Amino acid sequence: MTLLRTHIGSTLRSARVAQGRTLRDVAKGARVSLGYLSEVERGQKEASSELLNSICAALELQLSAVIADISLQLKASEAPTLSVVEDAA
Amino acid sequence: MTLLRTHIGSTLRSARVAQGRTLRDVAKGARVSLGYLSEVERGQKEASSELLNSICAALELQLSAVIADISLQLKASEAPTLSVVEDAA
Repeated sequence: MTLLRTHIGSTLRSARVAQGRTLRDVAKGARVSLGYLSEVERGQKEASSELLNSICAALELQLSAVIADISLQLKASEAPTLSVVEDAA
Repeated sequence: MTLLRTHIGSTLRSARVAQGRTLRDVAKGARVSLGYLSEVERGQKEASSELLNSICAALELQLSAVIADISLQLKASEAPTLSVVEDAA
């Protein structure tokens, strides 16, 4: 089952890694604990909307950009059969 | 401050109302309490990823469609100045 928090976590982690930043650095910027950020990134904890905003701000990302990225990931993960049909056409 | 749960709630409520369905009906289909669904719709409670999936299933919506809709809402709410500039151009 596709879970929103899994996609939120992987998107935040990808952005952080792409920026060459540590969990410690981003957690400090977002004023969350390192453990909390790590759990959110691994999709093990639901980020509250307020803390999601703080993490996005620490990563200098707009929430809309994060959600747009997740929307594309979800679309890809939800329609595997259609993709196969399209490939075959 | 824009909160993800506000947008999730309003999108779910709009979909339910567009389908002419009651809170009771959708809550039953999603196996959540009426009070929980009502709080989620009003942006007062964070829906867990699992229950968000259940609510989407009860509304016969794909999670990707809900998230795509929210992505557009967020984009619109984040760039009011740009919109004004575009209107004036």
